[in-house]
Amino acid sequence: MIRTRLPRRALAALVLAALAAPAARAQSPDPLPSWRDGPRKRALLDFVAAVTTEGGPGFVPPPERVAVFDNDGTLWVEQPAYTQLLFILDRIRQLAPANPGWAGEPIFAAAAAGDLHGALAEGTAGLLRLAGAAQAGNTPEAFQRLAADWLATARDRRWNRPYTALVYQPMLEVLALLRARGFTSFIVSGGGVEFIRAFAEQVYGIPPHRVIGSTFALASGEGDGRIVLTREPRVDFVDDGPGKPVGIARHIGRRPIAAFGNSDGDWHMLRYTTEGQGRRFGMIVRHDDAEREFAYDRESHVGRLARALDEAPARGWHVVSMRSDWLRIFPD
Amino acid sequence: MIRTRLPRRALAALVLAALAAPAARAQSPDPLPSWRDGPRKRALLDFVAAVTTEGGPGFVPPPERVAVFDNDGTLWVEQPAYTQLLFILDRIRQLAPANPGWAGEPIFAAAAAGDLHGALAEGTAGLLRLAGAAQAGNTPEAFQRLAADWLATARDRRWNRPYTALVYQPMLEVLALLRARGFTSFIVSGGGVEFIRAFAEQVYGIPPHRVIGSTFALASGEGDGRIVLTREPRVDFVDDGPGKPVGIARHIGRRPIAAFGNSDGDWHMLRYTTEGQGRRFGMIVRHDDAEREFAYDRESHVGRLARALDEAPARGWHVVSMRSDWLRIFPD
Repeated sequence: MIRTRLPRRALAALVLAALAAPAARAQSPDPLPSWRDGPRKRALLDFVAAVTTEGGPGFVPPPERVAVFDNDGTLWVEQPAYTQLLFILDRIRQLAPANPGWAGEPIFAAAAAGDLHGALAEGTAGLLRLAGAAQAGNTPEAFQRLAADWLATARDRRWNRPYTALVYQPMLEVLALLRARGFTSFIVSGGGVEFIRAFAEQVYGIPPHRVIGSTFALASGEGDGRIVLTREPRVDFVDDGPGKPVGIARHIGRRPIAAFGNSDGDWHMLRYTTEGQGRRFGMIVRHDDAEREFAYDRESHVGRLARALDEAPARGWHVVSMRSDWLRIFPD
Repeated sequence: MIRTRLPRRALAALVLAALAAPAARAQSPDPLPSWRDGPRKRALLDFVAAVTTEGGPGFVPPPERVAVFDNDGTLWVEQPAYTQLLFILDRIRQLAPANPGWAGEPIFAAAAAGDLHGALAEGTAGLLRLAGAAQAGNTPEAFQRLAADWLATARDRRWNRPYTALVYQPMLEVLALLRARGFTSFIVSGGGVEFIRAFAEQVYGIPPHRVIGSTFALASGEGDGRIVLTREPRVDFVDDGPGKPVGIARHIGRRPIAAFGNSDGDWHMLRYTTEGQGRRFGMIVRHDDAEREFAYDRESHVGRLARALDEAPARGWHVVSMRSDWLRIFPD
């Protein structure tokens, strides 16, 4: 047995320290330092407090604390074009010399020349052909390496920074806050699943199995006495619009209690989330900051936001103004 | 500052306690008490030690410690028939009065009469029709409730116990061991994903988003002003055989380092796992215990095990004998 003798003063110090502890905790650092104090920040903190307060009316047990995040325009920049589209154009340019037949196809010629507008001239069908040519025919692992290598070297023209540096600091803080409060967060993106998996773990702290996205068909075969999975140039799931609730049900198997999006492509996901019973949270990032980022909504070809914006008040979705709600946009 | 005076004897006691700590840790309780000491148990513990020993040659960082488990016959009993098949027969019997047209169809009549053999007379195509009729037309959430309700009341005939009590205690110990050592475990089953999600969290500690299974097509629509997902009577993914690596790549996005199966339906998954680079682990549960469970392999219509068994030695897969390697089969 160990016996110690505490002087009276030491004892008093101990008691005082114990009394001070709750106050110190209440003054713990702001979990959302890049958010301006205001209705959006308060709504977010109130929601998190409500669903994590044991015994409270809004309490949700940790396994059911599922949050879903769109990626393009919600977690990182999507203008002037989706980052994955810029990757596709770079790949087409790189592969063009070995595919002389492409020269006769206007969208391929445009893509190889870095002409974004021309590459998109044939709409979705044309884009899917470009995407297949640029991204299929390899294994998921090989493709992920290609994407990671590109992301490590490519630079956005406006900021001259890697695309992975153009993620939104305020949203990184939301991800960290939810992680600390027992949530499980998923990315639910219209983008290709392997493209996002190539950086999501490092940049967002979201492991590959918590990324849901659009997919190419995978064929299972053999090569060199091993099982080889090959990505075929055929999209077999579009995780956008009405596809998002399907992707969520299929992959997560549980209705989220919080959803974060920025465009009409997230309208179904926001609805599916907030139409569930009990306390729910829907948030839309609105791009209204031309100076620090971009300003676009109804008329944009990328990240069009109209219906979700119009219905936000009635549906109780919180619309974040990047200009006034966010003190900063990017990490240092 | 608090100053304490330690008597010499107390100091000696402290030092002794510190010295004794490693020994106490080495005597920590056996993580696999239902496994008989022998080559299989040792192989499993050696593998876990190797991939979790920091600085060691086999070390794998926690995010990459992915393990996959087949369900039927690997985690719970699959004889005399898959539990989900028994559920389907019960549902057909229950729904038959409202579907008089079924009386003219032999497999439906057999299913409604509880005649397993007759219900399977038309092979896979017939089974898929029964499965669709019994299980589709509802939302994933509603179906999961149906399955959970059935599992709460149905009893296996031989043991007169709920099916969820017929899980293998030694495998529960493996799941718990891997969880404690920083692994992320997934179920990768040929069974329906929502059927397994109805019990996997409670019984195995595996949340819904870590269950991969076969799926019906999901249609997204509207009802009463809400988004409604409907399970269509059309299987759009078969997570068995060559489908397992596809399901893993699609859903997990990372090659597992450990795989547990029991039949030739797991051959592709075992290969895909153990063909990866670095330290890998493959294990096959062999049903050779007619007294305590069942004995079957090459000739069985359920859980046929031939090719995977023949190739196990060359591929380095560990074949567990339920009879001799497992001290007990079920939890109390």
